[in-house]
Amino acid sequence: MRTVEEHRAALVALVSALPPVTVALSESLGRVLAADVVAAVDLPGFDNSAMDGYAVRSADVAGASAAAPVLLDVDGDIAAGDTREHTLRPGATMRIMTGAPMPVGADAIVPVEEGDGGVERVALTLAAEAGRHLRRRGEDVRAGDVVLRAGVRVTPGRLALVAASNVAAVEVVARPRVHVLSTGDELVTVGHPLAHGQIVDSNGSMLAALVRASGGDLVGVGHLDDDADAWASLLADVPGEPDLLLTTGGVSMGAYDTVKEVLSGTGTVDFVKVAMRPGMPQGAGVVGPRRTPIITLPGNPVSSFVSFHVFVLPVLRALAGLDPEVALIRGVAAQGWSSVSGKVEFTRVVLDGDGVRPSGGQGSHMLGALAEATHLAVVDARTTEIRPGDPVHLLPLVGQD
Amino acid sequence: MRTVEEHRAALVALVSALPPVTVALSESLGRVLAADVVAAVDLPGFDNSAMDGYAVRSADVAGASAAAPVLLDVDGDIAAGDTREHTLRPGATMRIMTGAPMPVGADAIVPVEEGDGGVERVALTLAAEAGRHLRRRGEDVRAGDVVLRAGVRVTPGRLALVAASNVAAVEVVARPRVHVLSTGDELVTVGHPLAHGQIVDSNGSMLAALVRASGGDLVGVGHLDDDADAWASLLADVPGEPDLLLTTGGVSMGAYDTVKEVLSGTGTVDFVKVAMRPGMPQGAGVVGPRRTPIITLPGNPVSSFVSFHVFVLPVLRALAGLDPEVALIRGVAAQGWSSVSGKVEFTRVVLDGDGVRPSGGQGSHMLGALAEATHLAVVDARTTEIRPGDPVHLLPLVGQD
Repeated sequence: MRTVEEHRAALVALVSALPPVTVALSESLGRVLAADVVAAVDLPGFDNSAMDGYAVRSADVAGASAAAPVLLDVDGDIAAGDTREHTLRPGATMRIMTGAPMPVGADAIVPVEEGDGGVERVALTLAAEAGRHLRRRGEDVRAGDVVLRAGVRVTPGRLALVAASNVAAVEVVARPRVHVLSTGDELVTVGHPLAHGQIVDSNGSMLAALVRASGGDLVGVGHLDDDADAWASLLADVPGEPDLLLTTGGVSMGAYDTVKEVLSGTGTVDFVKVAMRPGMPQGAGVVGPRRTPIITLPGNPVSSFVSFHVFVLPVLRALAGLDPEVALIRGVAAQGWSSVSGKVEFTRVVLDGDGVRPSGGQGSHMLGALAEATHLAVVDARTTEIRPGDPVHLLPLVGQD
Repeated sequence: MRTVEEHRAALVALVSALPPVTVALSESLGRVLAADVVAAVDLPGFDNSAMDGYAVRSADVAGASAAAPVLLDVDGDIAAGDTREHTLRPGATMRIMTGAPMPVGADAIVPVEEGDGGVERVALTLAAEAGRHLRRRGEDVRAGDVVLRAGVRVTPGRLALVAASNVAAVEVVARPRVHVLSTGDELVTVGHPLAHGQIVDSNGSMLAALVRASGGDLVGVGHLDDDADAWASLLADVPGEPDLLLTTGGVSMGAYDTVKEVLSGTGTVDFVKVAMRPGMPQGAGVVGPRRTPIITLPGNPVSSFVSFHVFVLPVLRALAGLDPEVALIRGVAAQGWSSVSGKVEFTRVVLDGDGVRPSGGQGSHMLGALAEATHLAVVDARTTEIRPGDPVHLLPLVGQD
C-alpha cells in the first residue's frame, strides 16, 4: 500500500509547469507569474508632498511656533498633476497638495493645519525640519527593480504594485485545462427523475466547481457509461486536448469496475491502494496519443472530494507553476473524535472561533457533513484518537469564503 | 471625528440586499443563496452497499469465521446502477458492488475480502451482523429537508450536496454591480509615458481586482479629470446603472479636491474624517437620479486599499445578502511595531508559520509592502505598541491564495 506522500509525488511527476502566456494586467488577477516583473519607473516617480500644506525651505521656518509664527510670501499653488518644474525662492512658500511635485529648493512641508490659510502671505506655526512630510523619488521602488518574482500568484495588492510600476502586461503561466468525466451506469444528470438504483451524478458538478475554484479551465464535464467501446474511442482522442483528465468511479474492487479494467489494459495507468481514509483506491498515469495525464478518483462523492484536495490540487498547482504542496494550518480540537489506525484519515471539520470539530457524519457517502466543512483535518496513521485541546493539522478546502 | 464602526454602519445603511435571480447549479459557485434549498430526493435514495462484497441475511452467516466459513449459493450479481428489484432467498447470497441497491431480504454485507471469491458458491468468513456495511435510504438527507439555508455562499462541497439532492437550479442574490472611477489630473493610464508630476492610475486596476475578487460585477472602470462639468454629466446619468459607485482621490483637505467640492454641493454626500490610519478622509452618500450609493475613497493607493477592506467590502457583502462584518482571525505578533494613538491603525502584515509581522514600509504610498501583505492587523486606538508575543486581530485580504 502506498503512502499519501508517495502517491502524491508519483502524480506530480506526471506533469510540469505549463508554458507562459502574456496577458493584460487587468486579466492577470489570480494567475501565476511566469517571469519576474521589473518596474518601468521609480516609485514615487518624483519627490512629492505627503500632505496638503506649504512647501518650504526648512531654514526659512526654523524656530516657527504657535507663539512665534513665521510669515512667508505665497508664490502660487502646486496641484497634484502639475507637470511644470517650479522653483521656490528663498523666503517664500508655495501651497502644495498631497502627491504634487516638490518645487526645486524646497525641502519640507508644513501641513495646512499649521498655517493661517493665507493665500498671498501665510503665517506658519511649525518648524518643519528638512525632509518632513516628503516622499522621496524611488524610496519605494527603483526603475529596474524586480517588484514581483516569477512563481507568485497575482493578488489585488500585487496588481496595484505592477500597475504603479507602469507595467501594462505580464507573463503568466497558462491555466491548466481539465476534462472531468464521471463514470458509472447508475448516474443520472441532475434534475432528471431517478429510477430505483440510480443516483444523481453529483461528482461531475462538484469536480467542475473544484477545478474552477482552483484556477483551472474546464474543457469538458461529461459522463461515460461503463462500456469498453466508449472508453476506447475516448482514449483514441481525448476531447478538448486537456492537460489533465479527471475521472470518478470504477476503480475499486468490484467486478464491474470498468475504468480499472480498461485502463489497466493500456499499460500506462497504475491502480494502487493508498493508506488513507476515505479515498483508498486510486489510479493515475497517461492515456491516448498525446499521453494526457489522467487521475482516476473513487466514485464516492466524499472520497472524490477528499482525493481532489490531496492529489489533484497539487497536480493543478504544479501545472500552474506553483509549489505543489499546500501549507497546512494549525488548529486546536474543540471536540474529540476517533480515527482509523494504519491510514491517514482526512476528517471533514469546521474551524471557527471555538476551534476544530468534525462537521458531522464521516461516512464516505455523507454529503450533508461535507457541505458544512471548512477544512480537512489530516490525522496521521499512528493516531487513533483526537482529544479536545489536541493540536490538529488542517488543509483548507478550495473555494471557501 | 467618526469611529470606524460608525462610518461602516452609515455606509451599510445606504444599501440593502439585491433581488434574487435563478441560475443553473453549474453557475452558482461563489454566489449567495437567496432562498433555502430543499432536497428533491432522499440521500441515499435506496438502501445500498458500502462495500464491494456479498449481500447476505445476517442469520445465514452467524458464526462464520476463518476457521469455520459458511458456504452460500451465489444467486447472481448486483452492479451499481442495476435498476431491478432483486430478492435474496434464504441460504443464498448475491455479489454486490459499492453503491448497488440491496436485494430485498438482505440485511448485511460481507466484504469481498472475507470470501474465497467464488461466483457460483462462496465460502464467507465473517459473521456480519444486521446493518453491517449498509447505507440506509435517507440516512444523510430526507426529501423535503432544507439542505442549505438562504444567506450562505455556494462552495464546491455545498454544490455537491445540492446536486446530489437532485436540484438543478438555485435562487441566488444578484451580483453587486460596481463602477470604479479614479479621479485626478495627475493620473495616466498604465503603460503610457509619464511627464514630471504624473503618476500611473494604479487605483483603478487595484479596485477593479478587489471588486472582482469580492464577487462583484464591474460595469465600468474609468477616469474622470478634476473638472466640474465632467462630474455634472456623470451625476446626471451614472453609466452602467451600478449598485455602487466607487471613486478614488479628491477628498482630502487640499484646494483642488474636486470630488469633495462637487459632491458636497449635491447635499446627498457627506465628507467626514474617520479615526483610522491610513484612510482618514472618507465620503459617502447617494448621487444622481437613481440615488446611486457612492463611496469616495482617498487617492493614496494604500489608503484606498485599506478603505476598500474596511468599508467597501462590508457594503458589497450587504448587497450580496451576507453579514456585512468579516470575522477577524487571531494571530500572534512575531515582531513588534508601533501604532498611532487615537486612531485605529490598519497595519499591512504577513501572517505565516512564525506569526504576524509588518510587511514593510507603512507609508500610505508604499506599494511594495502592500504587495506582500496577507492581512491587515487591526490595532485599536488606545494601543501604541505591539510587542512580540502579543495577540493581534487580523482582517484577511481579499483575493489571497
